Amino acid sequence: MSTSLRAFFKPQTIAVIGASAVKGKIGNVVFEVLRSKFKGKVIPVNPKYRELMGVECYPSVKDIPEDVDMAVIVVPAPAVIDVVKDCVDKGVKAIIIISAGFSEIGPEGAERERKLIEIIKGTGTRIIGPNCLGVYDAYSGVDTWFLPEDRMARPPRGHIAIISQSGALAAAMLDWAARMGVGIAKAISIGNKADVDEADLMEYLVEDPDVRVIAIYLEGLKPGSGQRFLEVARKVVKRKPVIVLKAGKTEKGTKAVASHTGSLAGSYQVYAAAFKQVGIIEADSVLDLFDMARAFATQPIPKGRRVAVVTDGGGMGVMATDALESLGLLLPETPEDVKQRLRQKLVPFAALGNPIDVTGNVEDEHYVAAFEEVLKSEAFDMVMGIFLMQPPLLTEKLPEKLVQVFRRFRNKPVVAVTFGGSELTLKLIKVLEENGIPVYEIPERAAKALWALAYYGEVRQKLLEE
Amino acid sequence: MSTSLRAFFKPQTIAVIGASAVKGKIGNVVFEVLRSKFKGKVIPVNPKYRELMGVECYPSVKDIPEDVDMAVIVVPAPAVIDVVKDCVDKGVKAIIIISAGFSEIGPEGAERERKLIEIIKGTGTRIIGPNCLGVYDAYSGVDTWFLPEDRMARPPRGHIAIISQSGALAAAMLDWAARMGVGIAKAISIGNKADVDEADLMEYLVEDPDVRVIAIYLEGLKPGSGQRFLEVARKVVKRKPVIVLKAGKTEKGTKAVASHTGSLAGSYQVYAAAFKQVGIIEADSVLDLFDMARAFATQPIPKGRRVAVVTDGGGMGVMATDALESLGLLLPETPEDVKQRLRQKLVPFAALGNPIDVTGNVEDEHYVAAFEEVLKSEAFDMVMGIFLMQPPLLTEKLPEKLVQVFRRFRNKPVVAVTFGGSELTLKLIKVLEENGIPVYEIPERAAKALWALAYYGEVRQKLLEE
Repeated sequence: MSTSLRAFFKPQTIAVIGASAVKGKIGNVVFEVLRSKFKGKVIPVNPKYRELMGVECYPSVKDIPEDVDMAVIVVPAPAVIDVVKDCVDKGVKAIIIISAGFSEIGPEGAERERKLIEIIKGTGTRIIGPNCLGVYDAYSGVDTWFLPEDRMARPPRGHIAIISQSGALAAAMLDWAARMGVGIAKAISIGNKADVDEADLMEYLVEDPDVRVIAIYLEGLKPGSGQRFLEVARKVVKRKPVIVLKAGKTEKGTKAVASHTGSLAGSYQVYAAAFKQVGIIEADSVLDLFDMARAFATQPIPKGRRVAVVTDGGGMGVMATDALESLGLLLPETPEDVKQRLRQKLVPFAALGNPIDVTGNVEDEHYVAAFEEVLKSEAFDMVMGIFLMQPPLLTEKLPEKLVQVFRRFRNKPVVAVTFGGSELTLKLIKVLEENGIPVYEIPERAAKALWALAYYGEVRQKLLEE
Repeated sequence: MSTSLRAFFKPQTIAVIGASAVKGKIGNVVFEVLRSKFKGKVIPVNPKYRELMGVECYPSVKDIPEDVDMAVIVVPAPAVIDVVKDCVDKGVKAIIIISAGFSEIGPEGAERERKLIEIIKGTGTRIIGPNCLGVYDAYSGVDTWFLPEDRMARPPRGHIAIISQSGALAAAMLDWAARMGVGIAKAISIGNKADVDEADLMEYLVEDPDVRVIAIYLEGLKPGSGQRFLEVARKVVKRKPVIVLKAGKTEKGTKAVASHTGSLAGSYQVYAAAFKQVGIIEADSVLDLFDMARAFATQPIPKGRRVAVVTDGGGMGVMATDALESLGLLLPETPEDVKQRLRQKLVPFAALGNPIDVTGNVEDEHYVAAFEEVLKSEAFDMVMGIFLMQPPLLTEKLPEKLVQVFRRFRNKPVVAVTFGGSELTLKLIKVLEENGIPVYEIPERAAKALWALAYYGEVRQKLLEE
C-alpha cells in the first residue's frame, strides 16, 4: 500500500506541466527550484516552448519519450483534468496538483475535484493536492514549493516529517526551521487532499528510515476518513511518534476552519479523545510542535519518568521543578553516593538534591562532573541541563566539554535550556544543537519535550502489549 | 517614602568599596563598568591603593572629601558591617551590598544581616542586598552588575522595570533582552532583601516616568511582609501594571525555593489568590513575562475585549481565534460596511469575517487597506496582525507601510505575529519592533499579550471605582 507513494519522494524523472520562462511565475519558480536541487531529471511541459532554459520542452507529457515518475501540475484549474488524463495515459505514478480552483472555491471546483478522482481510480496513479505546495524532500531534492529561497529558506536535513493542511503555515515552518537550524526530512503540503491524505502519508513515512517523528498540522479530517486515520495512526505510533497540532478547538476556531480549508472540523473533544486513544501526542502551538519534534528527532526514548536537573541558576531550577512536576514527571532525590562524590567536586554551597545547583561560582569542570554523575546514575531516566552563561568562571570551552560527556551516554535523553544572548550563550546553542542536543529558551518548554519522550515511551509500550 | 530610594537610581557620586585593580575580580568589574557608563562621579575605596586606573583611591569612604550618595560594597562578608557603619557616618543614602555570606549561608550569616539592619535603623540610609547584583538603570547609567559586557550585554533603553529575587536569572534576562532588542528601564537584583524589598521598589517605580510596567520574579515574600506587599501593589496597579512570575508553585518547587533563596514560599494558592485580588497579573514563564511586559511598554490600554485579526495565513488565523477565544477575548464579526469596502480592495477569495484572511495572494496594499479599516472601526478595541512573509507578491516595503498606518491610530493596541526566518521576516520584525509594535512568533503568545492589556484595563477600572 504505502509503496504507491514512493514516486512522490524518490522519482527518477519529474515533468513540470505548465513550466514557464516568465520570471516569478509559479511554473517558472517550480521548474527552477527543481532544476537546482533535484538530483534526477526535470522535464518542462508547455506547448508554448520548444526549449526552456536549455532543456527540451514538450507540448504534452505524452510527448516525452522517456518514462516519467512524477508530474507537477501548475496549469489553470480548468485545464488540469485533461492534463491528469494525459499523465495517467503516460503511466505517471505521482501527480502533485499545485493549481487552486477546486473544492475550496465552491460547487464548481468540487465537481472538478470529483472528476480527478474518477480519472485515477484503479490506475495506480496517486494525487497530492490540488491547491497545495506539494513535496519537500531534503534527501532526494524533490522540492515543488513555488517559493524562491529568499522568501522560504530550505532547512538542513534532519529527521522530522511535516504534513500540513495549510500550505502557508508549512512554508513558514520550513523558513523558520531553516533559520533555527532545525533539521527536516520531508514536508508535505496536502492542500484539499482529494486523494492522498494524512493516513496515506503516515503509512509511507513510518517505513522511511530518514524519518523519526511525524508532525501534522490538521484542521479537519475529510468526512468518512476518520476511522482509517485512527487505525493507521495506532499502527504507526507503535513504531514512530506522531504529533498533531489541531486547529479549530473552540467554537469560533471551528468556524474559522470552515472559512479557511472548508473542513467540517467537528467537535474538538471528539478529536482529542480519539488522538489520546491511539497514542497521538497533541501540540498546543507551532512552537510546541517543534519543541517536541526536535526531542524525538535527536533523543532516545527514556525508560521512565525520572528527571535530573542540573543548573547554575537556582531560579531556573525552581521553574524547571514546577514545570516537570506539573507535567507528572518525577524528580527523585540525588542518591547519597552521588551526592558524596559531587561534594568533593562542586563548590561548597552547591545544592546537591535535585535540582543540582552548581551556583554562579560554577566552573566548566563542575558541570562536567555533575552530568557524568547523573547520566551514569540508575536513579535518573532523563537529564535537563540549564546553562545561564553569565557566571564569570565559565569559559567558551564548556560546550565542547559537555558534548564529550553527552556522547558517552547516548542511551539517556538530554535536553538543554539557556536564556541569554551574548557570545557564550550563542556558542552553547550552536554547538549543542549541532551535536544533537535540543536547546530551549525556558525550562517549561524543555520539560514539555521530556514529557513527550516519556509519554511516548509509555504509550508505545501499552500499544505493543495490546 | 519612595523618595528615599532615589539615590539608588539617580546618584551624583558613587563609592565602590572594595574596588580592585585585579582584572576579573568583582571589585574590578564593578568599578570599570560604572566608570564607563555612569554619568556622575565614581570613587574607588580600598586601603591597598592610592590610585586606581587614574582615579584617586581612598582607604575608607569616610576619607572621601566630597559627599557620596551611593556606596557599592564588594568586600568579604565579615568586613561589611564596619563598612556599612562608615557609610552611615558619611551620610551615604543608598548602599548596595553585593557581597554574599549572609542569611543565605545559615545562622552566622543571618546574624550578620540582622546587624546591618540595626545599623541603618532610623538613619535614612537604605540597603539593597546583600547577596545581589544591585541596580541597572538604563537612563542614569547606574550599573553595579559585576558582569562584563561580553557575558551580559546591556539592553537598549525602554520602559520595563524588572525586580528579581534571583540575580542569575535577572542577568540572563538582561542579556536576552539585549539580543532581542527589548527595551529595559531598570533592573534590580534584590538578593536577600535585608532592607529594600519588592514593595519599596514598586513605590519608587510607580513614580518613575521612564517605567510603564513593573515585572517581578518572586520566589517568596519575607515573613510579615505580605500585607504591605499587597497594599502597595493595590495602589500601584491603579497607575501601572504589575506582572509577577512566581516560582515555587508545586510541592517540589516550593522545596527547591527553600534550597535556593531560603524563602518560605508558603502555599502558591494563597499567593495566586492574593495577586488576583490586588490586580497583579501572573506570568507562566520568563517568556510569558516579557511577552506581556513588551505589550504594556509600547501599547495603550484598550477600551474593551474585542479583537480584529488580520492574517495572510488561514491556519494561523484559526490558531489565533482558538487562542483569543480560550482567553475570553472577543472576535466580533466584521461590520457590513467595513466588509463592503474591503471587498473592493482585497483579492476575490479573501475572507472578510474575523479573522480577515487576505490570503497568500496578498499584496502590501491589501494589508494596508485591512488595517486602516479595522483600526478605524468602532467594532474593535485591539488588533492582531499576522504576517507570513513567504507569499510572492509581498515586498520589502511592507514593514514601513504598516508603520505609517499604525502611527495614525496610536490609541488602539496593535500586536504582530510572524513565523519564518528569511530576510523579509527579519526585516518585518526589526522595523515593527523599532517602531513600538511588539512582534511574537506565534498567535498564542500575541493573544496572551492582548489579554493582559484588556485584563489590566478592567482591573484598573475596578480598583479606581472601589
